[in-house]
Amino acid sequence: MTVVGQLNPSPRLLLGPGPSDAHPRVLSAMSTPLLGHLDPQFITIMNETQELLRQAYLTKNPLTFPVSATGMAGMEACLVNLIEPGDKVVVCYAGYFSSRMIDVAGRTGAEVTVLERPWGTVFDLQQIRETLQRVRPKVLGIVHAETSTGTLQPMEELGNLCHEFDCLLLVDAVTSLGCTELKVDEWGIDAIYSCSQKGLSCPPGLSPVSFSDRATQVIKARKSKVQSWYLDLTSVMQYWGGERTYHHTAPITMVYAIREGLRLVLEEGLEARWKRHWNNHKALKAGLTAMGLPYTAQEGHQLPQLNAVRIPEGVDDLTVRKQMLAQFGIEIGGGLGDFKGKVWRIGMMGHNSWPKNVLLVLSALEHCLRTAGVLVAPGCGVAAAEAVYAQLA
Amino acid sequence: MTVVGQLNPSPRLLLGPGPSDAHPRVLSAMSTPLLGHLDPQFITIMNETQELLRQAYLTKNPLTFPVSATGMAGMEACLVNLIEPGDKVVVCYAGYFSSRMIDVAGRTGAEVTVLERPWGTVFDLQQIRETLQRVRPKVLGIVHAETSTGTLQPMEELGNLCHEFDCLLLVDAVTSLGCTELKVDEWGIDAIYSCSQKGLSCPPGLSPVSFSDRATQVIKARKSKVQSWYLDLTSVMQYWGGERTYHHTAPITMVYAIREGLRLVLEEGLEARWKRHWNNHKALKAGLTAMGLPYTAQEGHQLPQLNAVRIPEGVDDLTVRKQMLAQFGIEIGGGLGDFKGKVWRIGMMGHNSWPKNVLLVLSALEHCLRTAGVLVAPGCGVAAAEAVYAQLA
Repeated sequence: MTVVGQLNPSPRLLLGPGPSDAHPRVLSAMSTPLLGHLDPQFITIMNETQELLRQAYLTKNPLTFPVSATGMAGMEACLVNLIEPGDKVVVCYAGYFSSRMIDVAGRTGAEVTVLERPWGTVFDLQQIRETLQRVRPKVLGIVHAETSTGTLQPMEELGNLCHEFDCLLLVDAVTSLGCTELKVDEWGIDAIYSCSQKGLSCPPGLSPVSFSDRATQVIKARKSKVQSWYLDLTSVMQYWGGERTYHHTAPITMVYAIREGLRLVLEEGLEARWKRHWNNHKALKAGLTAMGLPYTAQEGHQLPQLNAVRIPEGVDDLTVRKQMLAQFGIEIGGGLGDFKGKVWRIGMMGHNSWPKNVLLVLSALEHCLRTAGVLVAPGCGVAAAEAVYAQLA
Repeated sequence: MTVVGQLNPSPRLLLGPGPSDAHPRVLSAMSTPLLGHLDPQFITIMNETQELLRQAYLTKNPLTFPVSATGMAGMEACLVNLIEPGDKVVVCYAGYFSSRMIDVAGRTGAEVTVLERPWGTVFDLQQIRETLQRVRPKVLGIVHAETSTGTLQPMEELGNLCHEFDCLLLVDAVTSLGCTELKVDEWGIDAIYSCSQKGLSCPPGLSPVSFSDRATQVIKARKSKVQSWYLDLTSVMQYWGGERTYHHTAPITMVYAIREGLRLVLEEGLEARWKRHWNNHKALKAGLTAMGLPYTAQEGHQLPQLNAVRIPEGVDDLTVRKQMLAQFGIEIGGGLGDFKGKVWRIGMMGHNSWPKNVLLVLSALEHCLRTAGVLVAPGCGVAAAEAVYAQLA
């Protein structure tokens, strides 16, 4: 019999693509004793969580709740509910996570058209308009904050454009909720999913989703059964809706966590939170640039919360990341797919987006780059970041 | 803007069908800061969790891990991976949760045959043999501990019987793992799922599954893609298997929780834990019987961890359960489906199966029954329970 000792992980600072560190108040909420999942007090907590989530998403959508599983299940929940076999879907592909949307949509029996752009670039309206005109899809899927490339897709006019062609707009907001501007109603988003472990500073385990009335009607009018029982919103909406009819047992403690994470978001205020992420990004970017690390995403569309930079020629990805972890307890992310071994991804998300962490990661990275034989002027990264903070003050 | 205050639920004793109270050590583990989901230390924790789970399931199956969602997702994970469209499945139906198995199997495109027995009874081998002979299914699904009726299905010879007909045995162990005898390898179980919030005394959020080599081969030999991306074991087994290839972000904190819950199970010892559940059940049953509450499950097949009893004629279900909650902070469960309003379900699961709780629930229920106008001899329930404990001592 294997003897397994008490849980004792080393302290970490999680500056990768997520999970990001959970806020201490979230961790504390998670040690709260359980309520039953049908307890009137838990129903109140569900209502409160939904209301907080609506405020964070800037939506009035009644069908707004956390799916009882991680972010990818949120993507699947949106697709399996909106799509019936034979429906047409357009997926805008310019990174790893849009390729997953293609895969998941394909498994629903959808006829998937891929609108492709190079990784690290954004889509323009004209291109999307032409595709909508040609394909006439039921759903257009797009990633708001592409975590694999660090690219921020402009969203303001996309909803109107989709609705012009009677198409539903589906948005991956896994890395944007709680970090950068996100306005579900104003932008005309019909279905959106996110996660708990990035901008909301909770552990992974929930996927907050929201559906417009238009999308909700489409789900209610389905002719075929949703292929997933667990994610079938025609039933789940009775549990998270008015009736509170038992469907599955909600993950009580994760709901405690996201409620606390959302409270923190709203206490800070959305505008203030978005600004904080931008400010720390400007400082981090100045530092990384000074150290000779170029961004992978096109200029003007770089994500503040996820900084993807090219690894210098001749430097081994894993050696540096291992040193960062072993010597400083700092996790940064490697590249995915085409970017594997070529890109580092530095997250500054939620609670972790903080000047202290910007200066720390720049110092640590400078040290590791020097170990790897890269000539970095001592302190250049930190100096550049500090200059930005001085300017912002 | 709705103001949502600090989390402050009333203290509860959860003696319903689950969630059961989380053990204090589990709650404490859940406030541990996060590791990244690809951190070498988290990989070790995953390995340890899998090994602990194998010990709790009494299996050597390599493919043993917690699905990143609640129990019903475990059921769906088993069915969508084992079944391809057109495959034949037999489901043994004698309660609410087997009806869900029929629904979920149907959504995979399976040809489902239902072997039906009255709620609260068990299946006999001869009946199953005849069905296997007639239908020749790929999978036979059965519920080990039916939570809606409080019935314990004998399992010892079922595996051999299924294998005689080249059929895979799929078992719902949502309410049995960590409570009563469960021997995956010895009983020849090919696929099994459970939950975290009952016998393991963790919050809901994970579904521990295990697959025999026979079942694993069937999954690997699939001709069609698994319809669910999130639950696709052909990919997930590379994440929870040797390669640790990124699939989705594991719910770190829930893994911390189940690891601690499993440590508690194995520290106590499986045999000792099963015996504890039986002893407290005997006392509880003596008490409930003395108070005139008959069991719904057939004699000799009553679940120790979930005691389903008929509500006395003329007593309103909800009135009593509300009083139990308001006056004593005790949650007991109501009936599901056909048993709604007719049955109470009293759980004594995991950490909660404890003489203190047996005496408390009997006293509280006696009080509420008297309020409802039922003539109960004062203290008869507690006296009967204490007599059992005296005998066991």
